Amino acid sequence: MAEHLSQSELDYPFKLLEYFNGFRVSKMIFSACELGVFDLLLKSQDALSAQHVAQELGTSMDGMERLLDALVGIEILEVETAQGTALYSSTDVANLYLAKGSAKSLHDMIIYRSQTVYPLWNNLVDAIRSGRNQYEKTFGLPSGHFFQAIYRSEEEMLKFMGIMSCHWVLDGHDVVTAFDLSRFQKVVDLGGCTGALANEMARAYPASSVTVFDLPQVVEAAQKHFKQEDSGVTFQSGDFFSDEIPGADLYVLARVIHDWPEEKCLALLKKVYETCKPGEFPRNQGHPHTLIGQYLTLLHMCGAIFCN
Amino acid sequence: MAEHLSQSELDYPFKLLEYFNGFRVSKMIFSACELGVFDLLLKSQDALSAQHVAQELGTSMDGMERLLDALVGIEILEVETAQGTALYSSTDVANLYLAKGSAKSLHDMIIYRSQTVYPLWNNLVDAIRSGRNQYEKTFGLPSGHFFQAIYRSEEEMLKFMGIMSCHWVLDGHDVVTAFDLSRFQKVVDLGGCTGALANEMARAYPASSVTVFDLPQVVEAAQKHFKQEDSGVTFQSGDFFSDEIPGADLYVLARVIHDWPEEKCLALLKKVYETCKPGEFPRNQGHPHTLIGQYLTLLHMCGAIFCN
Repeated sequence: MAEHLSQSELDYPFKLLEYFNGFRVSKMIFSACELGVFDLLLKSQDALSAQHVAQELGTSMDGMERLLDALVGIEILEVETAQGTALYSSTDVANLYLAKGSAKSLHDMIIYRSQTVYPLWNNLVDAIRSGRNQYEKTFGLPSGHFFQAIYRSEEEMLKFMGIMSCHWVLDGHDVVTAFDLSRFQKVVDLGGCTGALANEMARAYPASSVTVFDLPQVVEAAQKHFKQEDSGVTFQSGDFFSDEIPGADLYVLARVIHDWPEEKCLALLKKVYETCKPGEFPRNQGHPHTLIGQYLTLLHMCGAIFCN
Repeated sequence: MAEHLSQSELDYPFKLLEYFNGFRVSKMIFSACELGVFDLLLKSQDALSAQHVAQELGTSMDGMERLLDALVGIEILEVETAQGTALYSSTDVANLYLAKGSAKSLHDMIIYRSQTVYPLWNNLVDAIRSGRNQYEKTFGLPSGHFFQAIYRSEEEMLKFMGIMSCHWVLDGHDVVTAFDLSRFQKVVDLGGCTGALANEMARAYPASSVTVFDLPQVVEAAQKHFKQEDSGVTFQSGDFFSDEIPGADLYVLARVIHDWPEEKCLALLKKVYETCKPGEFPRNQGHPHTLIGQYLTLLHMCGAIFCN
């Protein structure tokens, strides 16, 4: 999204109109995902007509045809014509990221964005006015803090954990190898959720011990519902605000800082600073705080500005 | 949105993630517009701090700061730092298209997209399943046809008419001058709404007479609420499905065909074909139907695939 809005936009606002249509593009992809379009096309050996897809997925023909054509327009699908009938097939990109089964599937991320984040953002004006999350107005849910809403049921919590996993399937390896972290023997991932990032860490640094520290219900769900590879990652239950955190050489706070108001972040960072083992840092690395600071910044940059 | 999804997307899906965030970008701009950010920055001589903007517009400081930073990220705003304080100012593009008063303001289009179209698209899955519009599910409104919903009150009708006007302020001149239409003495714009396109037509072809034909309540509102330039455009009330349409050499159906199911479109096009005056077309232009067909296609292309 960082393409330059050049002066030629003054003659005709192409980029601006693209921004105005952004929500339509998102929802087209999200809806095709929810309806199972990409799964059906991946499974099928042949390109399929809109009528075939509509029948298989139990949708209207008119709606499905418009959706498929729109997805061709943004190059998520391909179309060819045989004997006057348009036949649609998937692209490699759609098969890899949008179908359900693939190793890099972003399916869970998409469902969460479509069903939770998109409607929340309908109330962005109110969020900016009040400085508060919009779970109550959007879903009639308690809105003290959005984790109250996210963790209101196991089903919702699992959805949220699913998208956290998706993010690290995409970015985890790049993040943990951006710096050489092999010098850190004990790593604790605070709010490490499903352990997806911790697994990447353990794989990249097999000599380090890696612990996920998260709320009891999250740890339980992570171990029960998310595949834990044989990477040696351990889990420990607790609340990083109210409980002691385990000692470590390196703390990971990934997609955490942006969730909380400044005073909570400062309290948490202070706790990390005080618990972090300074004696075990190698020389010539400066103060551990600085290194953690860099690392925190790096990880924080992976988070969206407006996360919720 | 037609940038190519290249094979490198398989390594990392940059474009796909941009599509997933499209709704956030739309809503950021829409919300800033609704809150009056662009109007305030246009009015102000100096760059303003987030605190200043928040105070003026009655919003939270945290929310406003995040919004302003996000708008800098997509180059809609600019930022500079003075004595440790970030100061925000508008860009020429924002002043021209996003502030309220400007000649090319898209403010009405934005409000309609934000408050009506964005929430409707939250139910796109249901729309595709059922093949029906989602006014009932989204707003609890009767959903036989979406014009029932759009024209349910004068306020809603005026909003809708506002966006139609915005479209032709942007595209009208280019559309009416894409072909030389000076040979057509009498032009009728069927469903011509506020007359914005008809005015462009009359300006480009001063020797032609141009008539807007639309429903009585639309014609009344167009004359009462929308500035009618001294372009000689006349208005005539009627229903292009159930009433006779006025005779003409050229009919305009702009942003109309995509609103209706195929059988209604065919009936309307048949009526146009039968009423169109073939004797008055110049020689060497082929059958009038062909020319109208080209023109209809051109205008129709201006409409979004998923308009409502």
